[in-house]
Amino acid sequence: MTEQSPLDLAEDDPFGPHNLPYGVFTTADEPERPRLGVRYGNHVLDAGAAARALGSPHAGLLEQPGLNPLLAAGRTVWHEVRSALTAWLTAPAHRAVIEPLLHPLDAVAMRLPYEVADYVDFYASEHHALNVGRMFRPDGDPLTPNWKHLPIGYHGRSGTIVVSGTDVVRPRGQRKGPADPAPVFGPTTKLDIEAEVAFLVGAPSEPGRPAALGDFRDHVFGLSLLNDWSARDIQAWEYVPLGPFLGKSFATSVSAWVTPLEALEAARADPPARDAEPLPYLDDSAEDEKGGFDLRITVAVNGHVIAEPPFATMYWTAAQQLAHMTVNGASLRTGDLYASGTVSGSEVHQRGSLLELTWNGRDPLELPEGQRTFLEDGDVVTMTAWAPGPDGVRIGLGEVTGRIAPAL
Amino acid sequence: MTEQSPLDLAEDDPFGPHNLPYGVFTTADEPERPRLGVRYGNHVLDAGAAARALGSPHAGLLEQPGLNPLLAAGRTVWHEVRSALTAWLTAPAHRAVIEPLLHPLDAVAMRLPYEVADYVDFYASEHHALNVGRMFRPDGDPLTPNWKHLPIGYHGRSGTIVVSGTDVVRPRGQRKGPADPAPVFGPTTKLDIEAEVAFLVGAPSEPGRPAALGDFRDHVFGLSLLNDWSARDIQAWEYVPLGPFLGKSFATSVSAWVTPLEALEAARADPPARDAEPLPYLDDSAEDEKGGFDLRITVAVNGHVIAEPPFATMYWTAAQQLAHMTVNGASLRTGDLYASGTVSGSEVHQRGSLLELTWNGRDPLELPEGQRTFLEDGDVVTMTAWAPGPDGVRIGLGEVTGRIAPAL
Repeated sequence: MTEQSPLDLAEDDPFGPHNLPYGVFTTADEPERPRLGVRYGNHVLDAGAAARALGSPHAGLLEQPGLNPLLAAGRTVWHEVRSALTAWLTAPAHRAVIEPLLHPLDAVAMRLPYEVADYVDFYASEHHALNVGRMFRPDGDPLTPNWKHLPIGYHGRSGTIVVSGTDVVRPRGQRKGPADPAPVFGPTTKLDIEAEVAFLVGAPSEPGRPAALGDFRDHVFGLSLLNDWSARDIQAWEYVPLGPFLGKSFATSVSAWVTPLEALEAARADPPARDAEPLPYLDDSAEDEKGGFDLRITVAVNGHVIAEPPFATMYWTAAQQLAHMTVNGASLRTGDLYASGTVSGSEVHQRGSLLELTWNGRDPLELPEGQRTFLEDGDVVTMTAWAPGPDGVRIGLGEVTGRIAPAL
Repeated sequence: MTEQSPLDLAEDDPFGPHNLPYGVFTTADEPERPRLGVRYGNHVLDAGAAARALGSPHAGLLEQPGLNPLLAAGRTVWHEVRSALTAWLTAPAHRAVIEPLLHPLDAVAMRLPYEVADYVDFYASEHHALNVGRMFRPDGDPLTPNWKHLPIGYHGRSGTIVVSGTDVVRPRGQRKGPADPAPVFGPTTKLDIEAEVAFLVGAPSEPGRPAALGDFRDHVFGLSLLNDWSARDIQAWEYVPLGPFLGKSFATSVSAWVTPLEALEAARADPPARDAEPLPYLDDSAEDEKGGFDLRITVAVNGHVIAEPPFATMYWTAAQQLAHMTVNGASLRTGDLYASGTVSGSEVHQRGSLLELTWNGRDPLELPEGQRTFLEDGDVVTMTAWAPGPDGVRIGLGEVTGRIAPAL
């Protein structure tokens, strides 16, 4: 009886040969040597070692402690490297070389796989914006007048983006409820999640040269799940007039795995019908690819599913966000990350935040360990997702998870 | 007759031995070799070459293409390097070594002297906030309820921070006036300036560990003038509810020179009296150093002075901004830059933006070349400043200048 090879995956493995997401790992033997890896089933391939062993012309890009050099290399190289990886992992001729370069996932530690340049967070789900507007501006139109004319976004803090698995310390800050005569200071009492999808920019752009809708795949390398942790009480008190700041900047968690856009060909999806005509630079009606994706997200707290947000319902696409973000001449850098904003569908169980799921605490969730309005210390939030792949196979997105540690 | 040595400065030179700001330059001979330099009068010392020639233990930090390694080294090293530079530039014994390492400013090109990590922009002038509030919220309280309780700020785009002298291309974008039935797209018609002071973080902080008011000088290395170019029409249409985005992200200009805080001992200034009691983490009443500075700014358009904003009038100090920015546990990185927000004093000619100076275009400025409400193509905006130094000498801040290029 021989042990099964890690190269022999079940046909429906969500991390099979059609997926091949990238990450950065260290081993117990060499905890200070981060290496670029590619996930295959429940193993990670040491991509640099494989490239060197097999004489790849791209070994220099893969023998790196992070993804940035590969990201900067551009779309043609991304395709060549992916083709090579597919061959290395599937061709019997390479088996003897590749097999020893596969590390079990439970024997490695994952790191943030790229250096984040600028981080932008959008607000692109109409259902989410409607829910938030109804809660916080009950007497007015829930959508601001600009909402259907441009993808609203803001810059977040790049330096506090952390890899999945990192504990999130409950932040402290100012809050002021309607009954408080003055603001009070302390740990947030409304710690929330936002289920989002983040797009990673590979190829930079020249200052002053906007990226058109059709340039999306020339610039964007791949995507990952992202949890935009939010302290709702801090945010509510600070955000007028210049937007969210400390209510968001304490931590943003991203998956350790970046799924290349090339793995998501079968997951392309048209966005929902728009009821306002966009300006030409945002008008995707004539585009071959509209930049929408059919990603099925699941959000769990302590292992219990609380929501299943459908990414295909997003009003604004990632291509439109890229076009908007650069239309004023702002340049892109390798490592720029931009997130979709909370993904919420039309149904209650499709909402991507506790704010919406509990209607700002009015309707607590019933979990086996008790009721939840917002997060309690020790809670573990895990988001997973899958997308349709070729031949009915599912493409798994790497999870993003984090545990709430008590305030200092 | 001998030519005067660049080491022999007039006693009142604003860039004399009490100043010693840092920058990064290239020479015509070696345009691709950026070098760390220190300004002395109208020359720049090749700091790395000097350190090497004189056997400095800090040569490794100075023989660099940028400031980041020195920034990361921390306050003790900053002091040692400054002491050494003072000796090299003033002691007769070093003259023969140092003199050949001085390059005339008009023979070098300056670069952005550091890699910007996160960029935050505050809103700390009460006069500015009152003016803006009166213009845009004429029927309500001009200050939002949070304004006197926390220094309001937001994250900006690090990747479009440019060094003084870089042309600024007029951005295009969406705007919608009250009479427009739908948004229109085109070059901004309200291109503005904001005269600000930016603080550069050297020593990083641990995630989860707030920087207290008294930690200001342990983290902040120095300051520079900054022009936060703003497209008011784009900003007005986009900024509700998540804050400024494309109205700011096309370009932010900073001086090529960073003035170390050590050069500004005599410029320490107490902030104005506050009329709301701050929460303890922002309460500077018992601090030896409050983090205010007496900086006298001058703003000129095409050489004509249009404003003289006094930095000492700022309600919130740089120390308070640092404490606030980190109180939620957000960490600092070397190269983080945070700006004060528009500096405006109580008088009309002390306002740091055209928005305020012309009251949103109602009261045009009369310049020799014609009236100005907002900036026209070809306009050159230059900000300079000085601070009190020891013995009545002025400490000059490096200028920040930029010319408006037409939209693409």
